[in-house]
This record gives sequence, structure tokens and C-alpha cells, in this order.
Amino acid sequence: MMDAAGGDITKEYTAEDVKHADFSSTEGAIKDHTAAIDVKTLDQSTVHYLSGPIRVVDVDGKPAKPSDLLSVEICNLGPLPGDEWGFTAIFGRENGGGFLTDHFPCAAKAIWYFEFAYSPHIPGVRFPGLTHPGIIGTAPSMELLNIWNSPQSLTLCEVQQSRPPANLPLTKGCLLGKIEEGTPEWERIAREAARTVPGRENGGNCDIKNLSRGSKVYLPVFVEGANLSTGDMHFSQGDDEVSFCGAIEMSGFLELKCEIIRDGMKEYLTPMGPTPLHVNPIFEIGPVEPRFSDWLVFEGINVDESGRQHFLDATVAYKRAMLNAIDYLSRFGYSKEQVYLLLSCCPCEGRISGIVDSPNALATLAIPTSIFDQDIRPKTNKVPTGPRLVRNPDIPQCTYDGKLPTTINPSAAA
Amino acid sequence: MMDAAGGDITKEYTAEDVKHADFSSTEGAIKDHTAAIDVKTLDQSTVHYLSGPIRVVDVDGKPAKPSDLLSVEICNLGPLPGDEWGFTAIFGRENGGGFLTDHFPCAAKAIWYFEFAYSPHIPGVRFPGLTHPGIIGTAPSMELLNIWNSPQSLTLCEVQQSRPPANLPLTKGCLLGKIEEGTPEWERIAREAARTVPGRENGGNCDIKNLSRGSKVYLPVFVEGANLSTGDMHFSQGDDEVSFCGAIEMSGFLELKCEIIRDGMKEYLTPMGPTPLHVNPIFEIGPVEPRFSDWLVFEGINVDESGRQHFLDATVAYKRAMLNAIDYLSRFGYSKEQVYLLLSCCPCEGRISGIVDSPNALATLAIPTSIFDQDIRPKTNKVPTGPRLVRNPDIPQCTYDGKLPTTINPSAAA
Amino acid sequence: MMDAAGGDITKEYTAEDVKHADFSSTEGAIKDHTAAIDVKTLDQSTVHYLSGPIRVVDVDGKPAKPSDLLSVEICNLGPLPGDEWGFTAIFGRENGGGFLTDHFPCAAKAIWYFEFAYSPHIPGVRFPGLTHPGIIGTAPSMELLNIWNSPQSLTLCEVQQSRPPANLPLTKGCLLGKIEEGTPEWERIAREAARTVPGRENGGNCDIKNLSRGSKVYLPVFVEGANLSTGDMHFSQGDDEVSFCGAIEMSGFLELKCEIIRDGMKEYLTPMGPTPLHVNPIFEIGPVEPRFSDWLVFEGINVDESGRQHFLDATVAYKRAMLNAIDYLSRFGYSKEQVYLLLSCCPCEGRISGIVDSPNALATLAIPTSIFDQDIRPKTNKVPTGPRLVRNPDIPQCTYDGKLPTTINPSAAA
Amino acid sequence: MMDAAGGDITKEYTAEDVKHADFSSTEGAIKDHTAAIDVKTLDQSTVHYLSGPIRVVDVDGKPAKPSDLLSVEICNLGPLPGDEWGFTAIFGRENGGGFLTDHFPCAAKAIWYFEFAYSPHIPGVRFPGLTHPGIIGTAPSMELLNIWNSPQSLTLCEVQQSRPPANLPLTKGCLLGKIEEGTPEWERIAREAARTVPGRENGGNCDIKNLSRGSKVYLPVFVEGANLSTGDMHFSQGDDEVSFCGAIEMSGFLELKCEIIRDGMKEYLTPMGPTPLHVNPIFEIGPVEPRFSDWLVFEGINVDESGRQHFLDATVAYKRAMLNAIDYLSRFGYSKEQVYLLLSCCPCEGRISGIVDSPNALATLAIPTSIFDQDIRPKTNKVPTGPRLVRNPDIPQCTYDGKLPTTINPSAAA
Repeated sequence: MMDAAGGDITKEYTAEDVKHADFSSTEGAIKDHTAAIDVKTLDQSTVHYLSGPIRVVDVDGKPAKPSDLLSVEICNLGPLPGDEWGFTAIFGRENGGGFLTDHFPCAAKAIWYFEFAYSPHIPGVRFPGLTHPGIIGTAPSMELLNIWNSPQSLTLCEVQQSRPPANLPLTKGCLLGKIEEGTPEWERIAREAARTVPGRENGGNCDIKNLSRGSKVYLPVFVEGANLSTGDMHFSQGDDEVSFCGAIEMSGFLELKCEIIRDGMKEYLTPMGPTPLHVNPIFEIGPVEPRFSDWLVFEGINVDESGRQHFLDATVAYKRAMLNAIDYLSRFGYSKEQVYLLLSCCPCEGRISGIVDSPNALATLAIPTSIFDQDIRPKTNKVPTGPRLVRNPDIPQCTYDGKLPTTINPSAAA
Repeated sequence: MMDAAGGDITKEYTAEDVKHADFSSTEGAIKDHTAAIDVKTLDQSTVHYLSGPIRVVDVDGKPAKPSDLLSVEICNLGPLPGDEWGFTAIFGRENGGGFLTDHFPCAAKAIWYFEFAYSPHIPGVRFPGLTHPGIIGTAPSMELLNIWNSPQSLTLCEVQQSRPPANLPLTKGCLLGKIEEGTPEWERIAREAARTVPGRENGGNCDIKNLSRGSKVYLPVFVEGANLSTGDMHFSQGDDEVSFCGAIEMSGFLELKCEIIRDGMKEYLTPMGPTPLHVNPIFEIGPVEPRFSDWLVFEGINVDESGRQHFLDATVAYKRAMLNAIDYLSRFGYSKEQVYLLLSCCPCEGRISGIVDSPNALATLAIPTSIFDQDIRPKTNKVPTGPRLVRNPDIPQCTYDGKLPTTINPSAAA
Repeated sequence: MMDAAGGDITKEYTAEDVKHADFSSTEGAIKDHTAAIDVKTLDQSTVHYLSGPIRVVDVDGKPAKPSDLLSVEICNLGPLPGDEWGFTAIFGRENGGGFLTDHFPCAAKAIWYFEFAYSPHIPGVRFPGLTHPGIIGTAPSMELLNIWNSPQSLTLCEVQQSRPPANLPLTKGCLLGKIEEGTPEWERIAREAARTVPGRENGGNCDIKNLSRGSKVYLPVFVEGANLSTGDMHFSQGDDEVSFCGAIEMSGFLELKCEIIRDGMKEYLTPMGPTPLHVNPIFEIGPVEPRFSDWLVFEGINVDESGRQHFLDATVAYKRAMLNAIDYLSRFGYSKEQVYLLLSCCPCEGRISGIVDSPNALATLAIPTSIFDQDIRPKTNKVPTGPRLVRNPDIPQCTYDGKLPTTINPSAAA
Repeated sequence: MMDAAGGDITKEYTAEDVKHADFSSTEGAIKDHTAAIDVKTLDQSTVHYLSGPIRVVDVDGKPAKPSDLLSVEICNLGPLPGDEWGFTAIFGRENGGGFLTDHFPCAAKAIWYFEFAYSPHIPGVRFPGLTHPGIIGTAPSMELLNIWNSPQSLTLCEVQQSRPPANLPLTKGCLLGKIEEGTPEWERIAREAARTVPGRENGGNCDIKNLSRGSKVYLPVFVEGANLSTGDMHFSQGDDEVSFCGAIEMSGFLELKCEIIRDGMKEYLTPMGPTPLHVNPIFEIGPVEPRFSDWLVFEGINVDESGRQHFLDATVAYKRAMLNAIDYLSRFGYSKEQVYLLLSCCPCEGRISGIVDSPNALATLAIPTSIFDQDIRPKTNKVPTGPRLVRNPDIPQCTYDGKLPTTINPSAAA
């Protein structure tokens, strides 16, 4: 959380319903038009705008305290009324990329309109929202912050440079609410507050698509009051949000209900690292998710494109399942970029299906078939490329050359 | 497949319903008693007993041919009538181990009875079967066999020695049906046929729990007739079968319906490696799976027990989610071995929930809450350890010392 | 529809998304307090306030025409923001009563708050909304109107006087939008427009709980432009809304998407009565309903309280199933009025389970068990009456004596 | 139950798993061929062959006693291995008819093969089984038997002669197990035992499709030992089994688990008639039913074919919904008899959707769309009559003339 170590706590909330609005992950930097230039040039150092920190107290006014567990129920959420649209983007390699940057180095984006989600950039697809906050978490203690920001904890990252490692605290783009920028307090906090990108022990940017209506997340409490923050509202997302900015990002509202489980960290969670802070949240899936009955599922194993084995590596296996799905669906009239965007934001499921049968890990990607207006299952006849699903020539099929990506031209779609 | 390069093809089957029975993955080597000694000493070189190869022809008698796609529907399956029991085992470290061998080095097992599955070794749990064949696959061509058996393809395995790498062909324990053992033909085949353990491009030991009643798997065809083999029947399994012999292994029967999609490999699948053979199966989930509405979900990130980061490593993250779940459930009256066995075989789901928020991959493990006879969700009061769920002192809590594991004593359970 | 024969058509809508708001079935006559007096004295002649009629044209501007089929998709709907509450009422016998008036003659009501629905008057229960419009329908032609309003068509009603028969057109309480009351046009329309209460060939007040988000209803078109009207928003309702005002009535908004299926009435619907107008709508259930996995189901057969048979009478059988359920649940700490209100508005299902095994029709009522905070299934021990579910003495257990009902006193609840 | 007042109790069963087999509702009288003559001439006085009565005792050997509640869980069930076929029949008017006898007076039948169910007589349809026993019930006490067999209790039946009223005890076709036919004991029992056709207070022939795997039914106990009987195995059935012999009748096996809830009748059930015996069973739906996500739903209201109102009559409304569905689906290449048979046996749902909006009751019939191999939803184009779904000229479209019905000729199908 941005404001982890201190910040703008001016109001107290009881452990009752809390309603806020206007969570915009990029605060208007992405426009409702089809040029991908705004994605390419987005300053990621300023994400994410959050609501909070919220100090949580019980009905007697006693705040949550370290070692409690904070139960947060997602009571209601949705797009900000009057602003029912969102976007999904591929970040280009020069801007951090995503899971498949080696295959999709160029920036692209799709605009979606609700309810249900449909996009002029990816015609023939329509699905209900599995709406959720990408970020929900409590504030870390200074001790946990020091662990996160310790350069030693990131050593492995420097070895694997296919994507940039995590950011340590940096003042550029730091958002600290009412604390005046440039003051010594602002400087101090900006130099020690954790960046929001990764999910962590406190929850944070976990990007779990199932934290939707009716779900309940149990967060460890590290500081008095818990200092709950949340934001980064997604209309929909697949498991993994693979194109990095892969959810349907939107402005939204959120209603929460908090309950304090006293000493719940000790009662329920077991630290797994060297300190009592190395715990993870747990959650319950809610009763009102859209449920699909028909799925087409793609397998992948940990053999890479050169034919090389990666012993029981689920990440490689999942990448292969994803690429298999992209190749397959691109035969039905879509460009590969369209499918990559689609699989980032539609309610698909990524599974670790096998992790013990040496040397092959097996990952699967399940796609609900009813989101398409054509039958995408294999048939004994030729692949029926639906008339409306023409390949869009303006979605770039580039190989990365360091130049600006071509924009997506909506007039060519549909 | 054992019989990949040739073998016992004496009957032709048309592309119609095929019914077989008596798939036993270990052919009686594991007994319906509670001593874990048979798990510890199991000769894994002899698994798996399979049915097949089945030569598939169409209604005109023309066989499936390379580059076709073989659609195989699971019409019916179940335990062998009169033999309604199965087992789940932890393989000890000296016998290959499983996903969590470093945490559970000793052999153990649980016996389950159907329908629905319950075990005297893990009281208070009961669930319907998500019955499936662990193995279903077509025969590889000699070209594909050579790729699998090339020592170069396994280089990475030698670096990561926490578990033994894949086996290359070996004659020990080889099962070749009607081909007489010791003959030159037997020797030749045993020296070139792939071992059954890993899932591969042809399907094989994919251990996907959703290949259950009504599902349909699309397998690439590499040799004339497809030479379909199947077996390793599981009454139930979680995603990943983490304790290695983690499904509820049983004797069972299976009814299949085959359809040949001519040129389907070319029409639908895209090779991802250096040859046209580097493809993977796809499948549809069937309409009659048991569906659960309430799930408790555990998160894990790629920070290991020493506090060290593993950049976007889903395998580490999933291991953490699994260990978090084991620790949590062990507070409800179970030993950790009991939970490890349970999470191997109950219908839990392993998800790759985040793979892009550097540096942390986030994996989740979802457990259906209704399989327990107590409420396992966090509550504001103390963990209610159900009266029937006493910790079983005879399930070994050992650290591995090279000695025989203690047996599980059923008289102490329930 | 009120405005069937003409009325306030000032705007044309294309067959695109339409958004309206503020559907209140009783326009503020029921207050958010707990006295049942407003239910008792409600003037039912003024229900229902509707939005419409909406003239539907296609993208070329051509209106829907008689014999077309109008496909109306429920894209989005919900409580009016800022007004997230509703009510469920028992209408007293003197005000029309409901399905079980002989057993519950007195007026009562419960107030519910969202999201999820909970009520101080029925503690220990909480459920997600299966939100829907109680009324959605096209305008009748004059010919169909004449059939409805023919006194002959209602002959049977006079025989069965347990409840008042349908109202013929009456000017009292008639709502005609912008048409000025008292003018000759207003008088003419009020004397010939059908009252809104029953569901009919045009849809209308069908009160079908499954017309929720993502469902699609196919309505016959009887007049040019279809003249679609809708309203009577329900946050939730069981099949049948048994206490008459039994849904959770609320102010809400609704977004629709219309498509004209040209000649669809002729293509798809078969008239069943003497004229081509005797058809009924069909609909598709949407993909995002809350789904429950555990149900407790009550049976009823067509033997009434005196022990008398009613040959294959599903209405009697269903009444018995409903009364069985009320008796059963009243043992868990609720008053019978509370259960009657609850079964009117929670997402329970009423089934005709047997209609051929002479002489007994069998009806069932299925109740999702997870809406209760206690386990309501039969157990080998005593019925556990949860501590919070005390019987509320202020909910009247009266037998009807013509006097005002006692109010429900909220201070005694919870 | 046939053997209600005494009979063949030679074995005691503890309240443990019980397995039986070979429940055939008509014991071979219906053959696996396509001539409907065997349906027309079936002697209904001999149905149903049952297993039981089973005396239920607890683990201490104490029998169930009157006023207990018997919990019976359906643990496993299915077709008798080797006999995987069944039939659905329309009974002709002269043989008792069904729900729509006035519309379908002639006998007809369809043969189905498992798993999943498909029929050469109704091509293009295929569905998983929602397998269940049509009959499950405890034995009545003599007091309850006297109520059932009292001629006074059936007075209303004589008024409504559209279908024959219930049978009083008759010796013809009576099945009494090991009691020798013709002995005084046999005569006595046959003259006082209730016939099996209707569902009653004890359960009996309730024909509830949801009493499938994992469901649990709570039956009142009227005699010592409960004397549980069961049979009439159905591979699948819609709500209501409308064509009377409308389930897919088969030979099957069944595994039950019984538990005695002492004094459960008093604790949980409320008598609704003049005696303590006027109670009804309740049940829980199991977790492993096939679940469908897409339904097409047909509405019906209580206006009959002559245009006449039947005030709040759910039976008439449901008949209309059923006829609407038959008319609709007959446009997709089926004969109306085919659809009537299909809607009797496929997993469709019959709902009482409105019972309070005077004067119209509203019933709905929901059909899962995925059982068809064509898209049956309304579309903007013409009804696509699938090439394989030609109207079968040999399924009789007769009006009843007292003559033998035409047979269904399978060679004309598909």
C-alpha cells in the first residue's frame, strides 16, 4: 500500500458497512478511444490510486491490533454509475510487458462497454462481469516494510531479466493523499512506502478475480487499526491478467463490511518464513459469481519453444497452455493480439493440473465457451470463421523494433 | 504409453462405444489395510497397467491416421463392481517423493471406501467422486519417441535434483501385454518405449481430474489407428495429485466413444516446438461434475521458507499455498500428513492466480468446504476441534532418517 | 398494461439499450418503518407505476409490428442508488389476501436492507438478490383487450370466492402518465385499459423471479411499436410471491436491450385458444443468477386440512407443501408469519413434481439452506433454536376479526 | 406400498448400507423394440415390483418405531450392469392416459440407451441421467391404510372423470413376495394393502426426479421397523413424468444408508389433517446432480383452449405451459408425440411461478437447451430444422378412435 507507513488517516470507521466510489487505477490516463498510444506511454510509477487507509475499530471503538485477522466482505461493487466502460491493455516491452512479452512485444488496447462486457475491438464476444477490486490489503508494519524493501530479498530477480524486477520505494509518481507533496513528511514516506504492484503478505495487488460480490477475505493485521486500503477496480479478469494491464480496468464503487477476528492471525495462520510476518491471506468465494457449465480447456507442459525441458516448472507449462489457446482461437477469425487481450480479461481459469509427474508440470487454461457467439469446439468440418470476426489489420502484428506501435483502428472492426 | 512403438494389437475397434474394465494402476500391490509398508516398498517401475493400444477406425473401416484428431468422450466410468475401495499414498523420499517431499519425507497411506468417498484414516471428511482415468493417450510416432528419449531434452533436470528426473526407457518392470518377455521383440520394445509417468504431447499420464463423465478429450494422432491406451483409474483427485500417488487409486471400468476428426491436428492445433509433433491435447469439461458452491481458498506467493524471492515462480507460490492450507487445516484436529493426503485426493482446485505482478507470482488452492463435517471457516471464536477429529498419534510425524516409516494404525482413528 | 390502448408515447426508441430508473410499485405508500398499518390500508387500485409504453423500432427506424416477436434482454438492474431497501408484506383478508389468507388473515410486513438482503424483522436470514422486474409486457391490441375485459371470460371466478376475482377496468387509481386526469381521453382510456394485476398473454405482471440479469424474454407484439412497459421492481422473490405483496418491493433501475424478431410470433408461437392472440411469452434464464447447491425440500399432496382429496389439484398440493414448510421452519425460532413472509421473498423454488399419479398431485417447495445462519436440516438431536431467533410476540398471531392488525414492533426483534 | 399391512419380513437389516438390485417397474413387460403394442396392452394392475419391506434397526438392534423419522440417503444407484436401456411411454386413453390424454390419446413409446441417454426414436437429443427411484416409502399403519382406502376420501374423484380415479385395494395383479398366492393370508393382505400408484404421506410413488445420488429423504415411520420399500428405477425424468409412464423406466440397482431420528416425526413434522398421520416427507437435494446453465422456459396461464378462465388453477396453467413447449419444439423437426415423450423424461423443471395474481395462475416449464444438438432458441432467421431431425411419419398423429395405435417404426428414424 502506498500509504503504509503513515499518511492521511483523518477519519475513524467502525466495523460496519463502508461505501466508497471512484476507484480508477490509472485516473483517466487511458481514454475511451482506440489509439494504443496512451497505453504505450503510460507512466506506471503513478499507479494505483487507492481509497484508504481505513482505520477499523470494533463496535466498542477498539481498533484492530496486530495479530488480529480482519474479515472483509465484498457486499456490493460495480462500475461507477454513468461511467460504464473500461479497457484492457497489452503493455509493450519497453513499458514492462506482461506474461507473453516475448510473443507480444507491442502495446495494444481494447475498450469494453457494460453490462455485459462487449468490445468493438474484439467482436463476437460478450460476458458477464466477475467484478472485483484488484487491490485489497492492510498496511504493513515497519518491520514487514523493511523485509520487502531489502535489496537482498530480490537477488534472484537480477538473474532473470526477461522482465524488470520489483521496484523499491521511489518518490516518482508517489500518491500520498492529503500530505502535501514536497514537504519533509512526504519525502520521508515516499522513500520508505512499498510500491503497490505485487501481491504480498498483506494482500495488496493480488488481482484475484474471485474476490467478487459476496466473497470474504481474511487479512492479517500488522498495524493498529489495520489501515485497510483498496482500489484498482476490475470489471472482469481471467486468472492471471496475463497481459499485465489485462483486467477490464474501470472506475467503480465498492461496499465492504469489516469484522475483527481477535488474535485470528495466531489462531488461524502459520508463518512460513523466518518471521511471524510471513503469512498469507485466505478468502471465501462468494455465492453469486457467474457460473459457466461448458469449458474448452487447453493443456501445456514445461517444454519450451526450442523443445527444451524445464523440470516441473508450472510457469513454463502455463505459458504453453496460454499460447496453445491463443493459437487455437486465432483460427476462428481473431488476431492473436485480440485473443491475448481476451484471455487476460474474460473469466477464464488457469490451473496447475500436474506438478508431480517428473519431468513434466502440466498447466491448463479453461475458457467458458458461451462467451463466444460461435461454437469454438473442434468439429469434424472446417473451422467456421464467423462472418463478423474478420481479422483486424490495424491491430499490430509487429515484431518489436523499438518504434511506436500501430494504433487499433475501430473503423476496421466489426 | 508402454506399447507405443508396436505391440499387442490383435483386435480392431470401430469408432464406436468401447467398454473395458479392471484398470488397476498398481495391480494389487497396495492392499486394503493400513500399514504403509506396501507404499514404501512399491516398485514404481511397473506402473501403470493400461488397456490398449486400441486401433481406432471409422465406420468405413478406415483407421485414424497421423494428423487426425481423435475425439474421445468419457461416457461412463466407475469403480469395478464389487471392488469399491481405493487408496491414496504419500511416497517416501527414497521412493521418489512428491510435491512436498521436503516437508513430508515418509511414506503413508489412507484407504477410502465408496460411494461417497470416506476413510477411517481421515475421519470427518466425505465427498463425491470426480472419477477419471489418470492416463489417456495415443501412441507416439517413432520420431516423437526419439525426442522424448533424447538425453539432451532432459538437461535441466540434472540441475534440479530435489526429485529424480524422468526415466528413460528401461526394461525393468516393463509391461508389454501378450508379447512374451525375454524374446528379442520384447527386448527391443522395452528399450525404446517411453515410460508412462509424465503427461506429454500425446496426453498420457496427464492426471487431469476433470476428464470425468461426459468430458471429451481431443488427442493428436501420431500413428495409424491412433493406438489409444488408457488406465490408472482415479475415484477422485485434486488438481495436481500432490503426494504423487495422491489420487484415490482404484480398480475401475471405463466406457469411451471415439470420433475421428480428419486432419484435425492441422486444422486445430499449432505446433509450438521445433517439429510438427510439439502439440498438446485439448478437452471439454463434462456436464455432470459434482459442483460445489462454497470454497475456502489459500494464497501463496513465491517467497520460500527462508524468505527468499523466486521471481514469478508459480511452482514455489503453489507450494506455499499448499503448505498454508495444510497448516491451517491441521488446526482442526488433523495431522499434517492427513491433510496432505486429503488435499491430494479431494476435489480441490489449484489456480495460477497471478503471474505478472513482478516479482511475485500468486497461486491459490481452493477447497470445497462441504466435504468436512465441521465448519472450517475462520470464526471469531476459537478453532472448534471436532470431537471425532482427534490427532492420530500413529500417523508418522517423522523427519526423514532413512528408516522405515511407522504404519498408520486404524484402531487409533475415529 | 395500464396504457395499453394509447397514451403517452412522445419519444421513439431504437432497438438499442434503454435505461430508466425509479420503478416503485407502490410509489412511497409503504414506509421504511415497521408498522403494518400502511400495508393494511394500501389502496391497491393504484398499483403498479410503470415505465413506458416504449415504442420499439429497428435500426432502420421501422417499428415492431403485430406478429413480430420482441426479444428483451435484461442487461442490468438493481436498487435505485441511495435507496437500498425494500419491503415484503402480507395483505390482510380485507385487502385481497394472498395464497394462504385462510391461515394468515392479518396484514404484516418486513423491511429488508441490501446488499445482501437482511431484515431486522426476520433475523438470522440473509441472501443475495435475484433481482427482476415483476412486470414486463407489450401492449395488447384492442381485440385482446376486449377478450380480457369480457365478463364472460371470468365466470369461473364467481364460483370460487375465497379471493376476489380479477378487476375489470376501473377509473379509480388509474395511472395514465401525461394524459390529464378528468379529460375525455383520460376517461375513455381508464374505462377500457386492462388492470395490471394478472400476468397474461402479453407478459405483464408475471412475477417470474428468473427474469433477472442476463435473461431474455420473448414477448409477442400486438400493436405497432410493441409499446413495451415494465416496472414493479423486486429485489428478490420466491417462485409465486405467495403472500401477494411477497417480493421484496423496491425502487430500482433497469437497462434493457431490445431486438425485433420479424414474424416471430408466427414462426415460433402457437395460439392455444380460439384466436391467434392466445399465445404466451417464453424466456431464457440468465447466466448470472445466484446458484445454491444445498436445498431442503418440502412435499405436499392434494389432501386438504379436513382430509379431503382434491383430484390431481396442483394448487392444493402446493398450498400443503408451503404450509408444511412454514410449520417446519417455525420450530427453529420463527413465528409462522415470519416464515410466510420469508418464503414469499427468498429465492425458493415451487415445483409441480407429480401430476399424473391419480389421485394425488405432488408439489414441492425447495428452500436454499445457506440463507439461514443455523443448520435447518433434520438432525438426530433436538431442534436447535438459535439464540438470536426468538419468537417475536409483536408479529400478530391473530385470527381475523375485522379489526386492525397489530403492528410489528422492531424493538422486540433481534 | 404393496406389502404394507404385513408380508415377507424374514430378514433384519441394521441401519447400515443396504444394496439391492433388479428393480424393474414392469418386469419385462415392455420390450426393447419399437412396437408400441406392449405399452397399449400393459396390465397396470401388476405394477410396481418393489424391494422390501426392509425392517430398519439401529446399531443396538432396536427397530425404528412409530413417530421416528427415517433418514434414507441415496448413496449410489444406476442401471443394472449389462442392461443399460430403458423406455418412456405414452399410455393410451383406454389404459389410463396421462397429463395430456385429451391431446395425445394414443399409446406410443421410445427406447433409450445409456450412458448418456439417447434414443433412435427421438434423434438429436442426448442427456445425462438424473437417476432416481420412483418409489421410496415406509409402510403405513393400519390406521393410515384405512384412511387411504376409505371410499369417502375419494369423493371428488368421481366428479372429475377425465382420468380414472385411484384404485382401492384389489387382488388382481397383487405382488406379495414369498406369501403364497391363493392362501387366506394372501387374500387378506391383497384386500387391504394400498395400491402403489399415488405418492402419499409415507412417500411411496412420489416420482421426484431429484431423489438422486447423494440426496437424503426423511420419511415418517408408521410401523415398527419402518418397513422401507423402494423400486421403480428411473434413469431420468422431468418434473411430473407427464406422459404417466414418462420416466425412462429401467432395471437398476440402488444403495441406501439409513439413520433413525428418534421421535423425529414429533420433533420436525406437523400433521395437517385430522390425525397425527397427515404428514409428508421432506428431502435434501444431493450435490452431484447434473446442473445446466442454459434454459428455455415456457409460460402458461389458466386459460384453457376454449378461452375460459380457471381461477388460480395451477394444473391448467401447467398444462398450457407444457402444450406451449410441445408446439414450439415440434417446429424443430419433431412430431408432437416425440416432444411429449421427451418432456416426460428429460431433466426439465415444472414451476408454479405465480399463484396470487388473480385470476391467473402462471406455471412455467424450463428445458435445458444443451440436451439438443441444435440451437432451439428463437432467432431472427427461420427455424433451422436440423437435417437429422425429420418428422417421423410412423409416430401416430391419431385422434383417438378406439383402435390400436400405430407402431413407431425405427427404420424411419434418423
